Amino acid sequence: MTDLQSPDYAKLTEAARDHLWPHFTRLSSFRKTDMPMIVRGDGCYIWDSAGRRYLDGLSGLFVVQTGHGRQELAEAAAKQAGELAYFPIWSYAHPKAAELADRLADLTPGDLNRVFFTTGGSEAVESAWKLARSYFRKVGKPLKTKVLSRSIAYHGTSMGALSITGIPALKQDFEPLVPSTFRVPNTNYYRRPDESMTPEQFGVWAADRIAEAIEFEGPDTVAAVFLEPVQNAGGCFPPPPGYFQRVREICDRYDVLMVSDDVICGFGRLGEYFGGNRYDYTPDIITVAKGLTSGYVPLGAMIAAERLAEPFLEGTNWFAHGITYGGHPVGSAVALANLDIMERENLNSHVRENTALFRSYLEKLSDLPIVGDVRGDGYFFGIELVKDKATKQTFNDDESERLLRGFLSHALFEAGLYCRADDRGDPVIQLAPPLIAGEEQFAEIERILRTVLTEAHSQL
Amino acid sequence: MTDLQSPDYAKLTEAARDHLWPHFTRLSSFRKTDMPMIVRGDGCYIWDSAGRRYLDGLSGLFVVQTGHGRQELAEAAAKQAGELAYFPIWSYAHPKAAELADRLADLTPGDLNRVFFTTGGSEAVESAWKLARSYFRKVGKPLKTKVLSRSIAYHGTSMGALSITGIPALKQDFEPLVPSTFRVPNTNYYRRPDESMTPEQFGVWAADRIAEAIEFEGPDTVAAVFLEPVQNAGGCFPPPPGYFQRVREICDRYDVLMVSDDVICGFGRLGEYFGGNRYDYTPDIITVAKGLTSGYVPLGAMIAAERLAEPFLEGTNWFAHGITYGGHPVGSAVALANLDIMERENLNSHVRENTALFRSYLEKLSDLPIVGDVRGDGYFFGIELVKDKATKQTFNDDESERLLRGFLSHALFEAGLYCRADDRGDPVIQLAPPLIAGEEQFAEIERILRTVLTEAHSQL
Repeated sequence: MTDLQSPDYAKLTEAARDHLWPHFTRLSSFRKTDMPMIVRGDGCYIWDSAGRRYLDGLSGLFVVQTGHGRQELAEAAAKQAGELAYFPIWSYAHPKAAELADRLADLTPGDLNRVFFTTGGSEAVESAWKLARSYFRKVGKPLKTKVLSRSIAYHGTSMGALSITGIPALKQDFEPLVPSTFRVPNTNYYRRPDESMTPEQFGVWAADRIAEAIEFEGPDTVAAVFLEPVQNAGGCFPPPPGYFQRVREICDRYDVLMVSDDVICGFGRLGEYFGGNRYDYTPDIITVAKGLTSGYVPLGAMIAAERLAEPFLEGTNWFAHGITYGGHPVGSAVALANLDIMERENLNSHVRENTALFRSYLEKLSDLPIVGDVRGDGYFFGIELVKDKATKQTFNDDESERLLRGFLSHALFEAGLYCRADDRGDPVIQLAPPLIAGEEQFAEIERILRTVLTEAHSQL
Repeated sequence: MTDLQSPDYAKLTEAARDHLWPHFTRLSSFRKTDMPMIVRGDGCYIWDSAGRRYLDGLSGLFVVQTGHGRQELAEAAAKQAGELAYFPIWSYAHPKAAELADRLADLTPGDLNRVFFTTGGSEAVESAWKLARSYFRKVGKPLKTKVLSRSIAYHGTSMGALSITGIPALKQDFEPLVPSTFRVPNTNYYRRPDESMTPEQFGVWAADRIAEAIEFEGPDTVAAVFLEPVQNAGGCFPPPPGYFQRVREICDRYDVLMVSDDVICGFGRLGEYFGGNRYDYTPDIITVAKGLTSGYVPLGAMIAAERLAEPFLEGTNWFAHGITYGGHPVGSAVALANLDIMERENLNSHVRENTALFRSYLEKLSDLPIVGDVRGDGYFFGIELVKDKATKQTFNDDESERLLRGFLSHALFEAGLYCRADDRGDPVIQLAPPLIAGEEQFAEIERILRTVLTEAHSQL
């Protein structure tokens, strides 16, 4: 393969089939048909090896906030790599990591000023749990080790993060995992337990289930609760009004750390840098990755409140944790350049100003019999597909299999839209375009979805 | 901070103190003195913000195989970032990940042909354990979930990898971890249980303790054993002759997967691409990271034998695992360019040809009363420090604290050598320079170590 001068896509496709183990993929799907080979990106669009163009309706994987093909980010990476490509922040600093930590501390709500860098989101979640456990030991509450998370929530796949993840199908092949994690309800208002509940009442109910779980386990044993601002898996569940404020009160009451997992929602996805800014809450820890660098180079972080660092400031105490690539110089340089772009182009404002328009295009699809719910916020929406709109009846496993894997994923891509058709919860289509998208892309998304979902319904 | 045009190092140092949480570091160490700020690298050397030069005796963190400041790698990163900076390999492929998977499959021993990409080493180890558990479930041996690893071995810090890590001090603040990991002896011949043992006898003894542990736990419940070719933590323990061959036999006898953790040893550190090539064994899984890209951009991989993929090739079976940044296009492009450099400059041969010379320079230090043992292989050596050379008596905790943290780490750096003074096991100094190093650097290392170790001894 080393003799490849210009890409031989047939050969590369063969190499992919024989040697590249794709993630979260049934290998059998690509034994007879080829894996799509994506070769180029520009703005909101990607191209495959046959030259076909697709609208990137998922920002890669909720990652490419400022869009594909930004030469400015490529140059920032090259400049740093040429100067100092790698050095660990294990008792040493380097300029870009220091500058980025400072800048993140400015952007976060409250006094979340201590930045522990990681390579990605799973590691940020792992680091948050490790800090919670270590912190409580240092302050004389060593029993506080357990964590709560929400049903169907995805928080990563390394074993600590996977233990917090609330999707049983992703865990069952790997048990036993880290003990002492417990699930509470998510904020799926569409499937609220009682139709008569207002959003506010539902928010109180959902938040109070966290208090109940803490009581069930014993407040002296619970370290933290992990929540995404808008929960991704299940299809974009925004928080009901008052939900996060009540969760904050509950966490304060029981001395449980509130961890806001902003890996997907951070850096403009909701029109603000962090979920806490969008929904007016101050967590104790924020976890980030993805949008921080727009994915051009891997980087993540766990950002902690000042008080959580305090026990570690004295004597021989330390947070016995580290990651080779945490605070990577090239990743840090790219993150700074990415934040520059977000500021210069006012991408947060752009998202806020266009959220209602994006939503309105998606809500046009509500006239289709298969569309049960359209929900989300910012540039982050889910469309729940149902068998019967009136009763909200969902599809059984076989139907969901045929609908999503048998038809939709392929048909949407064929029609020029890359997005996600997912059934980790009920079947949904998820949309999260780059933050530079505008009405042209919203219209394109609506048009393709309308055609393909109409065809899907006719095949049922 | 956003107004920084040229680096204001005083301000950056302040930012680092207030906001950058350094890894594996006592924060108290840098409340009165400044954290060293590394700003530039070139070849085997790094420079700090005051313009002082240091020999990088640790390749960053066993990472920078081809040396600092390689414009070729910076350009490879920029080219790929400009074309397609990010796309997931979740049911999709992109050219560089496919090409790299193909190339790695060619380089590995045996039929280790299936490449599951990760972002770094911890994730590679997590992925190996997850594959072992999932594989045995698919082939009807669902009880096989436990793993063995070696005392003092470091395999990462996310909770799964940390559970495998054999250093109690790194785990105690974070328990309970993933259950069912067990420790066996490492290959520290210097501290063998019986002085009369030959290396071969010691190797048999150490390998047989793996068989014993499998019997203790029940062969039907053990999934894998994790071993580094040369164990890093503890100070570079090479395998005794015959050790890996016997471990291979034991793994075959009990149907336990042999995982070679090549995160540190891979890509030329031992003068070969993989430990299996160096010591003539074929593992079932190899985990890599660090040297794969020389650290210019984060990337790792778990490379599995063909037979481990087989159960996943059929029907709806899948390996329910994935990582956003696994197979990152920019990381893959940099890895390919890094492998090009290794080939073009014959770095594996260079290391093999210079190992004896490097060792001979370090062995000169054996005349110092504080030097107990010099051990290692390739460009990867540890020097164990002792209180009494004749009896091999080591330092107690207080002495080790004063020697390593109170004096050596600082004094070596002041003298112009960046390396590691470590007491995760017995006190050692570890050396792992970039693979381009030669006699000039060996001599410089010996000279600095001689001065500083002589001074250290006089302070005891």
